[in-house]
Amino acid sequence: MRVTDLRATPVAIADPPLRSAFGLHAPFALRTIVEVDTDEGVVGVAETYGGDAPLRALDAARALVIGRDAYRLTPLRVELDAARRPAEERPWEARGFAAPALFSAIEVACLDAIGRQTGRPVCDLLGGRVRDEIPFSAYLFFKHAGDDEWGEVMSAEALVGEARQMRERYGFGSLKVKGGVLEPDREVAAMRALREAFGPSVPLRLDPNAAWSVATSTRIAEELAGTLEYLEDPTPGLDGMAKVAERSPIPLATNMCVTAFEHLPAAVAKRSVSIVLSDHHMWGGMRATVELGRLCRVFGLGVSMHSNSHLGISLAAMTHVAAAVPELTYACDTHYPWQTDEVITGGKLRFHDGALPVPPGPGLGVELDRDALARLHERYRGTDLRYRDDVAEMRKTDPDWRPHVGDW
Amino acid sequence: MRVTDLRATPVAIADPPLRSAFGLHAPFALRTIVEVDTDEGVVGVAETYGGDAPLRALDAARALVIGRDAYRLTPLRVELDAARRPAEERPWEARGFAAPALFSAIEVACLDAIGRQTGRPVCDLLGGRVRDEIPFSAYLFFKHAGDDEWGEVMSAEALVGEARQMRERYGFGSLKVKGGVLEPDREVAAMRALREAFGPSVPLRLDPNAAWSVATSTRIAEELAGTLEYLEDPTPGLDGMAKVAERSPIPLATNMCVTAFEHLPAAVAKRSVSIVLSDHHMWGGMRATVELGRLCRVFGLGVSMHSNSHLGISLAAMTHVAAAVPELTYACDTHYPWQTDEVITGGKLRFHDGALPVPPGPGLGVELDRDALARLHERYRGTDLRYRDDVAEMRKTDPDWRPHVGDW
Repeated sequence: MRVTDLRATPVAIADPPLRSAFGLHAPFALRTIVEVDTDEGVVGVAETYGGDAPLRALDAARALVIGRDAYRLTPLRVELDAARRPAEERPWEARGFAAPALFSAIEVACLDAIGRQTGRPVCDLLGGRVRDEIPFSAYLFFKHAGDDEWGEVMSAEALVGEARQMRERYGFGSLKVKGGVLEPDREVAAMRALREAFGPSVPLRLDPNAAWSVATSTRIAEELAGTLEYLEDPTPGLDGMAKVAERSPIPLATNMCVTAFEHLPAAVAKRSVSIVLSDHHMWGGMRATVELGRLCRVFGLGVSMHSNSHLGISLAAMTHVAAAVPELTYACDTHYPWQTDEVITGGKLRFHDGALPVPPGPGLGVELDRDALARLHERYRGTDLRYRDDVAEMRKTDPDWRPHVGDW
Repeated sequence: MRVTDLRATPVAIADPPLRSAFGLHAPFALRTIVEVDTDEGVVGVAETYGGDAPLRALDAARALVIGRDAYRLTPLRVELDAARRPAEERPWEARGFAAPALFSAIEVACLDAIGRQTGRPVCDLLGGRVRDEIPFSAYLFFKHAGDDEWGEVMSAEALVGEARQMRERYGFGSLKVKGGVLEPDREVAAMRALREAFGPSVPLRLDPNAAWSVATSTRIAEELAGTLEYLEDPTPGLDGMAKVAERSPIPLATNMCVTAFEHLPAAVAKRSVSIVLSDHHMWGGMRATVELGRLCRVFGLGVSMHSNSHLGISLAAMTHVAAAVPELTYACDTHYPWQTDEVITGGKLRFHDGALPVPPGPGLGVELDRDALARLHERYRGTDLRYRDDVAEMRKTDPDWRPHVGDW
């Protein structure tokens, strides 16, 4: 099954003014919809990061992909591998969009095509599902008031309200809070308010995105013992995390200091983290995520799943890969409830009791809505956003603002 | 594609009187031919270890396999995983044939079936080949005279003759010697004779199967610096190997102290070895071997491939998996030239310049010869061999014989 074309369509999707340690989400999040045509008539789709860098990378890689057998992608992975060539021979490399991300977009689209051709769901191509439904967590954000129905959420009380609404609408059984926004002790109070409101049967997580110092992280880990399921990236770097981990009664998770396979040996040696957040977009694809699961099990690490603002194609892919990774025992993160736009037919995928069933049907189990794609692409063309910059967005309302990086 | 039946047929295949540190090969090596029938008419085959234990295990697992979708095996792997149930609930567990070996036999047969159904070679189901031909090494043995054309090989000179013949017939570009048989210094002399005879362009390996002490291993590693590509399992255990590795100028490889994923963390921490010998039969299957490749790359370990006495189904599977693992950069071991029997149609697979092309055609690319299978099964029934016991075989000619285990 030869790939006859590779298309990348950039889109801009509405995004509420969500806060994080980095700053503020812009009114639009950028994504790229990838399609591979094949000589057997099926078309495979994928969704990846947005903006200039992925577009440049996908365009530069086009010649490497066209003509290739969709079943034979490992050689492409080897070719794209940054370590094997000098930089001038790697035109597909782009800041913020490394070879694993590029490979992932191509792999997901090819697996979708193979699934469509063989009539099998993508998770079957990865060894088969170990669960039929994937539990996701509510992803709670502090946020500014904006053109959305959620209003301003900048207090513990408002966060509890947001959580209540998320649970009512989607049935999420776990709550993750994007922290690093309020002064640390106020975030402790917010987590306690969530525990108070929902009780111990609802696991809670907090992710300050490395805004805190080692001392603050350690103190808060002790204070929140018994309250948090895990604490994600309280402080920057493997060494800082290792210092916190040494005394923390709460498992530490990461999506910042371990974001690629090559970070794992040092993380294991230093005992920096207990849980790695997988993300097939970032870690090199769906097969790579299965491999990450094995590796984590072997080295005694837990596996959870990370998310960025995304549409239904990414959500379907996340669901398939989560179904195929036995080690992924935590509810997965997803920004999906925050996105009102969609590029798949039938509207947004629906959570039941906080979980998403593996989409039935072949491939990823979703169909591209070409009208919606055209609309969201037009919106991309109409905005001048070409990369994500939460700092710049935040400075529009607070010119002196700068992110906390391990100093709070 | 549902599995409708699982059949295991034990066979006994002629085996020459090959020597190793454990003793002497019996006149027959035992293997098991596994078949899965499916409701789509295709039958998948696999080959695994022989004798009572695999038969018992495969029989006990039959109920777990029948009715299962051949695409959905990861849940079976999880179910078979020894760590998850008390021993009395694991009737498929058998000494010398652990859950990963059992799962591997089932997985290979199912992947063969999927490949036949979809018209794809098995390596395409693993991500695709990174090489079209798999280099194998000549597997040189010291041996007794027997009912074979090789004669007695118990000296350096005879070993050079054996190597010459292996190279002439099959074109092997690498030479592996099963050591631990002659007094260590005589094996050093044999390796030097091979180097003398074939020159530095022919990589040499020596595998004393942990017969030597740390002191002997260290001394010989220093003596053979520049002569060996790698030294395999000179001494027992991760700690012993680590002591040798600390001073050895030659990379150490293993198929004895790291034979399962759970051995890797300690091996990495102790720096016991540089190269892990994969074996899909032992490590839990073909996908597991791909995962092992990734894990080894991440942790800076090289990957080679181990072999036991085997037929063409195993060789085909080894070739497919080797094609799909980028990290497998060493010529693979194979006992295949020592086996005169075969269970596939068309006779024995043929090496070209020491390499085997990935078999064309769907699945593993080999067809079971049912007459040959019946003959070799009859031979199994006619012998009382039910497990491999090289010590007992050796004692038939030398009643006082006992293996060297780290004491030579």
